[in-house]
Amino acid sequence: MKVDGRHFRSIWLAEDGWSVDAIDQRRLPHEFVIAHLTGASDATEAIRSMLVRGAPLIGATAAYGMALAMREDASDAALDHAYTMLLAARPTAINLKWALDEMVRLLRPLPPSERMAAAYRRAIEIADEDVAINQGIGRNGLTLIEQIASTKPPGEAVNILTHCNAGWLATVDWGTATAPIYMAHDRGIRVHVWVDETRPRNQGASLTAWELGHHGVPHTVIPDNTGGHLMQHRMVDLAIVGTDRVTAGGDVCNKIGTYLKALAAYDNGVPFYVALPSPTIDFSIDDGLREIPIEQRGAEEVATMTGRTADGRIETVRVVPDGSPVANYAFDVTPARLVTGLITERGVLRAERAALASAFPERSAGH
Amino acid sequence: MKVDGRHFRSIWLAEDGWSVDAIDQRRLPHEFVIAHLTGASDATEAIRSMLVRGAPLIGATAAYGMALAMREDASDAALDHAYTMLLAARPTAINLKWALDEMVRLLRPLPPSERMAAAYRRAIEIADEDVAINQGIGRNGLTLIEQIASTKPPGEAVNILTHCNAGWLATVDWGTATAPIYMAHDRGIRVHVWVDETRPRNQGASLTAWELGHHGVPHTVIPDNTGGHLMQHRMVDLAIVGTDRVTAGGDVCNKIGTYLKALAAYDNGVPFYVALPSPTIDFSIDDGLREIPIEQRGAEEVATMTGRTADGRIETVRVVPDGSPVANYAFDVTPARLVTGLITERGVLRAERAALASAFPERSAGH
Repeated sequence: MKVDGRHFRSIWLAEDGWSVDAIDQRRLPHEFVIAHLTGASDATEAIRSMLVRGAPLIGATAAYGMALAMREDASDAALDHAYTMLLAARPTAINLKWALDEMVRLLRPLPPSERMAAAYRRAIEIADEDVAINQGIGRNGLTLIEQIASTKPPGEAVNILTHCNAGWLATVDWGTATAPIYMAHDRGIRVHVWVDETRPRNQGASLTAWELGHHGVPHTVIPDNTGGHLMQHRMVDLAIVGTDRVTAGGDVCNKIGTYLKALAAYDNGVPFYVALPSPTIDFSIDDGLREIPIEQRGAEEVATMTGRTADGRIETVRVVPDGSPVANYAFDVTPARLVTGLITERGVLRAERAALASAFPERSAGH
Repeated sequence: MKVDGRHFRSIWLAEDGWSVDAIDQRRLPHEFVIAHLTGASDATEAIRSMLVRGAPLIGATAAYGMALAMREDASDAALDHAYTMLLAARPTAINLKWALDEMVRLLRPLPPSERMAAAYRRAIEIADEDVAINQGIGRNGLTLIEQIASTKPPGEAVNILTHCNAGWLATVDWGTATAPIYMAHDRGIRVHVWVDETRPRNQGASLTAWELGHHGVPHTVIPDNTGGHLMQHRMVDLAIVGTDRVTAGGDVCNKIGTYLKALAAYDNGVPFYVALPSPTIDFSIDDGLREIPIEQRGAEEVATMTGRTADGRIETVRVVPDGSPVANYAFDVTPARLVTGLITERGVLRAERAALASAFPERSAGH
């Protein structure tokens, strides 16, 4: 999407035709810095340090990392080494493993002399495929926004609430939850986005607000506590969030706090949609609450906040008393009964086993 | 309650017998500083700058402020001046007006020579009355905690979730939501408190965690997004929150985000209690959602966070991109249907008109 009028992806092949550029997301929203990755170890470090984050973007970065590895050394040993190193950068990221397996499957049978070119080709394809899937999600979600817009008095915006960052920065472009929003905005439909700040890591305030603002989409940052009040007062027309994993039964695992917004939406008759690329559906599990383990992260993410002082320094401050323990559950599970629909690249589906199985017969078979 | 073994109130008559000491709550949790108020203008500034906050504490501070005013000058003109000045310190605080009206009603008929002594006497009484009411709330809420404790295996704590600070720092002592917790803890019942950090002003992380920790009550600070997940996994036995205003029908106006926790409690069968001194009940209104206007506060409370750097400096950092608008609704309304009970000094009441009217016939009459 656009950053002050110029189009960017979150990761791209640099002008030299071989190195890889990526937006350094650790520096946002206060600094817009482009990192230059010149080897597999750079790509590994970018994933590990969360210079890049978001499942689809991690996958694309890993694919580019394999291409950089093959440019350095295309031997079998180097292929294995790059795979192991990149996979260890964030061991729980499913897209990371998928992209690496895909690259190894393609590259291993080739003679070393052909591996570099093939790796670059496939890495670029993987990035392009992500963009195409998100455009599909965008087109399907756009219909929902258009329907609501058609019921509004002229000039009145469609108010959309989102949580965390399922934006273009989490993908290669467009984002998942944001794809319908960008498409609506680009077509001249008035939209306004309520952006949950999304404690503890503040991806809403620091990333979603940044990307919406720089593309020119009207938005307002709110504390995570606010969405229920807004829904009670008819100030939200629909909610669209992303997800890390959807079960075969339609339960949605997403950033902690998503469940609370889904409850408020349900209580107030506000449609609650989840946008996802179909690989996010895990047909091997059904009951999200029982079957999805919830990652606990470090206390310092809750106990401290990083931002910019009035005179421009980046500082980290502690906001919890010394000695007070802290808990940091990264995700929660929203039961399917609270989800109005799943916006996928194959259409908007009901959050239930039959609908998912019939839209993705090739994946649900055997489960 | 205790701060590292020594008993404190949030405000008290200083050792000199006439000036007033109060904990400077702006400096918590990182610094424990006692402010020394020596005149009505000090008391006014303490309220205005939020050195003291919380409805009952503001009322007590205003009463002490009138006593300090009468010590300086006990004339009618000085009485009127002090009233006007203190009232303007936080015009929307209902307890402030109540305490000031009470003082003026008492003092105006007296000859100036008797006003100072009478003002100190009544100010001390108002503070003591608050303590007594909170002890009543504590005793009634204690029963609920004891009941849950009796169903637990030995050694297992009763897990209580709270939001914002309805603790002793918001009152003169004991607090409202915390009074049952302190009583249970002091009697040797194992309790553990989940403390919502309570963005945007972080009263949970900075005040509730501080006071629980210094009294020795086990607790864990959590992002506001977390409570739903904990309730889904049976990690919360009950929720107790405070309130700024309860309607005759039992709707509860409290810090933004309370409604979301009440929804999660209801969805998971977790009892959701609201602790309040009975003057908080507003018998003149019934429907909280329609009739209670919600204050909007400044954007900087959301856009910035203040805390302590690793090397001990207090810094304020911006956490929202430049140019992103921010909304800051201070309260929300939890419908009575989601409230298990109201813990008052006259017992635990159902959140409905008949129960409130029969417990407080003298106040509900005429409405």
